[in-house]
Amino acid sequence: MEKLKEIIDSIVLPDEKYLKKALLRLSQQARPKGSLGVLEGLSARLSGIFNTLDVSLDKKVIVTCAGDHGVVAEGISVFPGEVTSQMVHNFVNRGASINVLAKHAGAEVRVADLGVNYDFDPYLPIFHKKIGKGTNNFAVEPAMSKKQAINSILIGIDIVDELLNKGGIDIIGTGDMGIGNTTPSTAIIAAVSGISVDKLTGRGTGIDDKTLLKKIAVINKGLALHKPDPNDPIDILSKVGGFEIGGIAGLVIGSAQKGIPVVCDGLISTAGALLACMLAPYARAYLFASHNSVEAGHVFMLKHLGLNPLVDLGFRLGEGTGAAVAFTLLEASTRVLADIKTFEEVKIGNAHL
Amino acid sequence: MEKLKEIIDSIVLPDEKYLKKALLRLSQQARPKGSLGVLEGLSARLSGIFNTLDVSLDKKVIVTCAGDHGVVAEGISVFPGEVTSQMVHNFVNRGASINVLAKHAGAEVRVADLGVNYDFDPYLPIFHKKIGKGTNNFAVEPAMSKKQAINSILIGIDIVDELLNKGGIDIIGTGDMGIGNTTPSTAIIAAVSGISVDKLTGRGTGIDDKTLLKKIAVINKGLALHKPDPNDPIDILSKVGGFEIGGIAGLVIGSAQKGIPVVCDGLISTAGALLACMLAPYARAYLFASHNSVEAGHVFMLKHLGLNPLVDLGFRLGEGTGAAVAFTLLEASTRVLADIKTFEEVKIGNAHL
Repeated sequence: MEKLKEIIDSIVLPDEKYLKKALLRLSQQARPKGSLGVLEGLSARLSGIFNTLDVSLDKKVIVTCAGDHGVVAEGISVFPGEVTSQMVHNFVNRGASINVLAKHAGAEVRVADLGVNYDFDPYLPIFHKKIGKGTNNFAVEPAMSKKQAINSILIGIDIVDELLNKGGIDIIGTGDMGIGNTTPSTAIIAAVSGISVDKLTGRGTGIDDKTLLKKIAVINKGLALHKPDPNDPIDILSKVGGFEIGGIAGLVIGSAQKGIPVVCDGLISTAGALLACMLAPYARAYLFASHNSVEAGHVFMLKHLGLNPLVDLGFRLGEGTGAAVAFTLLEASTRVLADIKTFEEVKIGNAHL
Repeated sequence: MEKLKEIIDSIVLPDEKYLKKALLRLSQQARPKGSLGVLEGLSARLSGIFNTLDVSLDKKVIVTCAGDHGVVAEGISVFPGEVTSQMVHNFVNRGASINVLAKHAGAEVRVADLGVNYDFDPYLPIFHKKIGKGTNNFAVEPAMSKKQAINSILIGIDIVDELLNKGGIDIIGTGDMGIGNTTPSTAIIAAVSGISVDKLTGRGTGIDDKTLLKKIAVINKGLALHKPDPNDPIDILSKVGGFEIGGIAGLVIGSAQKGIPVVCDGLISTAGALLACMLAPYARAYLFASHNSVEAGHVFMLKHLGLNPLVDLGFRLGEGTGAAVAFTLLEASTRVLADIKTFEEVKIGNAHL
């Protein structure tokens, strides 16, 4: 915890100088004031983070964190647990949804194994960071130890360091893969918010009514058994979380510490971001929401974090797919700020405004 | 009208063979069914239009139609009329919002003068298609003759032909530039819908309360004076429309006739698309909505056309900016369909589904 605390304490807020310069330039551009809506505010935030009016987001990376979940034994998912490792291979072979959407957005996909129940070939080009072969079933025992929870976060932070050391990155998007992981994510939100589980629980990959009731019961059982402290993110993560969720929290904290923006994807990623911002409130200044997931708990988390999603396309997939779509819009916002000319630059009178 | 009727009659609906093939492939991809939300349906529609599962939208063009409006004399806009021609120069010099957002989307911008109150240099690289130097003030007399209204639509159709003849295009986005043109657009929607003008009228480029009341009064005056027939799009266009709005209607009809998709932008473009679909109901099959404008009348039109906007970013700018953003998402949808592997292709069992 000492090391994590040290890293968190070293996060600094972006200074406001360029944020203000950006807002001024946006108001002087040859178009009606405020007419590019949310892209304007986004471009100003990015400008503040990078201390320039001409932000480059050329080097974009989606980090998809993978892990398995003991709670799958309770029968709360459509897919069997072995699909997690199969999908990791699919990511490496570039055939999955995130590969396709990241490529379209000009982003690289990097996969991290934090806890998949499979022995990957050590030469497989992924971040090999396995903490365990899946978490414990939180309906029976805590998902992991506190030490493992802290470790999962430190791994996420390390991944940011490694990416920066190997050629640099301008922006990180978080992604997840872990069969069953809407269950721990929903448990996390319920623990933090105190909102009743039945109001927060969604259908994940597409479970039927009967399985939905079982999922709600399992989450309630885990929360009643472990009584996670709503104000202690490590306690929550260890009792009802997941290795990849901790990894995502680490990506958010690591990005903030390095002063680069980080975009969270859907339900699982935002659960990780929620824990990250509880541990490190300043990280919020570097965090961007991507899309509005179909999952009910997602809306609560975004509200709690004070984030507005950029798009609402009915995605319920994870992997980082929402973050990839958001990359495109965030990049568009940087061009809006830097490249649209001002009234003065194009010599159109604005005395009448 | 004969020529226009002939063109409209030659529009054919996309056949359903590839639409169905696309829906089948989407359902077999290695991800939860329906998990990419609206991108799935879009990709299937595009597949049906192009008769292939591997649609290319490489060649993207935004056509920004410009025209001036006599009704500006009533004082209903923040900007003076001469800004229309200044912005046309700004488009050509690539300094405007649409240039920046189109470039980011990998699209070209082409500008068409259908009725700007300015003598452009004949060598300026725009479509020189001036019908008149601005419309008449519809608060006093009809905006244009019926012949001019039909002519404006035929010009839009001609532009599609010219673009196709010069190297080809895969998709067209519509855009507009015309100081005051939310006023005729709102008048068009009121005429078609019968909804009261005060419920439909927005603030355009940012008018104050007093000017908003004047704008509502001017639209009501024009509608009371000319009584446009709600079922006759040419009657409506000629009495309370605009040259660039007719041009946009022509772009929609021309795209449908040539079997290419067309994306409408905000309030003004969608007013043009509404008239186009009244004239040519089959054109709807080639039409895609882009964004949700802040303008109140826009919501009505999209509902009337049965179109769902892709994004809601708080834009209220026009020029084609919403269409440019939508291009990126439509292109992403084509990659989703073609490139995400099926369970069979990646050998992940889906027997459990």
